[in-house]
Amino acid sequence: MSVTAAAGFLAAGVPAGLKSTGRSDIALIRNTGPLQNAATVFTTNRCQANPVLWSKEVIKDGTVAAIVLNSGGANCYTGAQGFQTTHATAEHVAELLEISAGDVLVCSTGLIGEQLDLGKVTAGVTDASGRLAGTAAAGLAAAEAIMTTDTVAKQAVHASQAGWTIGGMAKGAGMLAPGLATMLVVITTDAVLTSAELDQALRAATSVTFDRLDSDGCMSTNDTVALLGSGASGVTPDLGEFTAALTEVSQSLAVQLQGDAEGASHDIAIHVEQAVSEADAVEVGRAIARNSLFKAAIFGNDPNWGRVLAAVGTTSAAFDPYDVDVWFNGIRVCAAGTPDQPRDLVDLTPRAVDIRVDLKAGGHAATILTNDLTHDYVHENSAYSS
Amino acid sequence: MSVTAAAGFLAAGVPAGLKSTGRSDIALIRNTGPLQNAATVFTTNRCQANPVLWSKEVIKDGTVAAIVLNSGGANCYTGAQGFQTTHATAEHVAELLEISAGDVLVCSTGLIGEQLDLGKVTAGVTDASGRLAGTAAAGLAAAEAIMTTDTVAKQAVHASQAGWTIGGMAKGAGMLAPGLATMLVVITTDAVLTSAELDQALRAATSVTFDRLDSDGCMSTNDTVALLGSGASGVTPDLGEFTAALTEVSQSLAVQLQGDAEGASHDIAIHVEQAVSEADAVEVGRAIARNSLFKAAIFGNDPNWGRVLAAVGTTSAAFDPYDVDVWFNGIRVCAAGTPDQPRDLVDLTPRAVDIRVDLKAGGHAATILTNDLTHDYVHENSAYSS
Repeated sequence: MSVTAAAGFLAAGVPAGLKSTGRSDIALIRNTGPLQNAATVFTTNRCQANPVLWSKEVIKDGTVAAIVLNSGGANCYTGAQGFQTTHATAEHVAELLEISAGDVLVCSTGLIGEQLDLGKVTAGVTDASGRLAGTAAAGLAAAEAIMTTDTVAKQAVHASQAGWTIGGMAKGAGMLAPGLATMLVVITTDAVLTSAELDQALRAATSVTFDRLDSDGCMSTNDTVALLGSGASGVTPDLGEFTAALTEVSQSLAVQLQGDAEGASHDIAIHVEQAVSEADAVEVGRAIARNSLFKAAIFGNDPNWGRVLAAVGTTSAAFDPYDVDVWFNGIRVCAAGTPDQPRDLVDLTPRAVDIRVDLKAGGHAATILTNDLTHDYVHENSAYSS
Repeated sequence: MSVTAAAGFLAAGVPAGLKSTGRSDIALIRNTGPLQNAATVFTTNRCQANPVLWSKEVIKDGTVAAIVLNSGGANCYTGAQGFQTTHATAEHVAELLEISAGDVLVCSTGLIGEQLDLGKVTAGVTDASGRLAGTAAAGLAAAEAIMTTDTVAKQAVHASQAGWTIGGMAKGAGMLAPGLATMLVVITTDAVLTSAELDQALRAATSVTFDRLDSDGCMSTNDTVALLGSGASGVTPDLGEFTAALTEVSQSLAVQLQGDAEGASHDIAIHVEQAVSEADAVEVGRAIARNSLFKAAIFGNDPNWGRVLAAVGTTSAAFDPYDVDVWFNGIRVCAAGTPDQPRDLVDLTPRAVDIRVDLKAGGHAATILTNDLTHDYVHENSAYSS
């Protein structure tokens, strides 16, 4: 179950011929209300795709009635023609669903710099609109239609005791980096919340989940996380409880994205402890997560902790470079900047890897999720557009 | 010819058993004067190896009589014992050459977090001191002794009309990133210059050469560039002319480092034009050079210009994201943010790749050198310490 788990939402996913493989590539989600509140978070990349430019206008009034997503093309760096494609797509959704085009979010993912085939998109949207349903199968079909190099659909659900539900779907496999990762995420809820409340909860949840996933350091032009609220449960939640549940759903989707990252053979959690601030902890974790040598070493099951410290040394975080402890999978290999336990005690053969760095400088911590640098990552990304 | 090309310098390189391969791993260079002026530039990584900590003290008075370099171990994160190894090495050189230990620079390169075998180091230094010579063969032996995963020794020479000479050697293959790259560089000259003049020339030269080489975004803990001046030519050069020649020698060595970078199959020059400042141009070039997806695409001979723009969009440089031009090997694939020439016109099969990005924002430019992300890079760096 994903976006159709909450009451008030219909979904569909269909093949429209945008992907050369013939797989599903158009997803449509409709919020049937009674509320049509929404919040979004977009990529902080300054080069933004046409659907992001469009959706930023749509969200301004906090009202979203539907969201249409396509894989098979990012519609980024496609100029005025590309923007018209996005606009026409929203108009077509609006006409079919008898809503305003100004209430239709558009998301695209795929290759940058190629025009989308508008005829195929509109035909696919027409097809999808005829298949809209509130079933689990319809939710799964939507989740499958946004996949690019993903190997599995990503879905998550939280059902509260109080009667409201949150469900979500995500895609993302490459170009995964913060602010946000290369990903499209749609989360729905039937809780009764205003758009401002949804926005507050969404920003809190993404800042500690999707924003701390940094698979390959590459920030996308198309990232969008949308949270749609139908209010159909009739239940107004405690906002703190709702935010915690939304964070849980977001973290579940983020971990699923990490687990399916292009070519990865290890899922790495980098825990940075005793930093003077959360920002310092995040900066240190991200510097390690972006170090190609460290990531290649993990691929080789090599506990090369020197590469961790070399990465930490490039940050501006407060710490004494010669009083840092480092653990690999529970083995303290470096204590106070000198070799501690023998590195051959570390077993890096499991997919899950835990790196712990103790800065001994303060009381804050953060965890960054990343992946290793593998032959398959290089292979997949050297052949993507050809 | 390299460090022995200038008059007043003797060099040697010998195997001391630090490398498991039995290849040369100790280099020694002596400045026989009459001057013993010097300048250095060190890594800006906050985690610095013991030889860097030592050498920073040595250079304070601007006098250097000898430099000893070892491969086979970085002597970084080796604590008090590691610092004592560096200190004892300098003392041993001083005793053999009848100079002050405070005038002996020490450089190390290799794995972080392992102790160097001091007995092997001192025996190697004794051996090297007996082989010191001013010949080209001795210079080459020194250049070979500092190689790690380098496949060729790097040397460069400039002989001026006025009678002074500059010669240099370098090593560096992985962990190549600015500030500086993972490299050890020794440059010698017989020009008559003070240590302050050498320092001024060296900072000017490195800032536009080694500092603009960013092979894999990973900054080392051991980087050192040393410039030693013997004054043995008796000629005082024009400082501008000397700096230009030093820049030429540095650039030659930087390009040799790029050409031998671990696993690389393409040497990429990223030219950023019409930036509002040189700093902006460098920031944009570096962001592209550090983008794993771009680098993997080049490995696959794929002119994926969308990844260039996605990288540019992560910078704070001044530009209009929708008015940028991009060329791949002379083919303009993106004009004013929209597709221009077909990407299949681009031939990326040659090793040399030219990327040109026109920001259309100002009058400054910079070129960053990098390499592609290949299977061999992953392979070499997943197996390095094991």
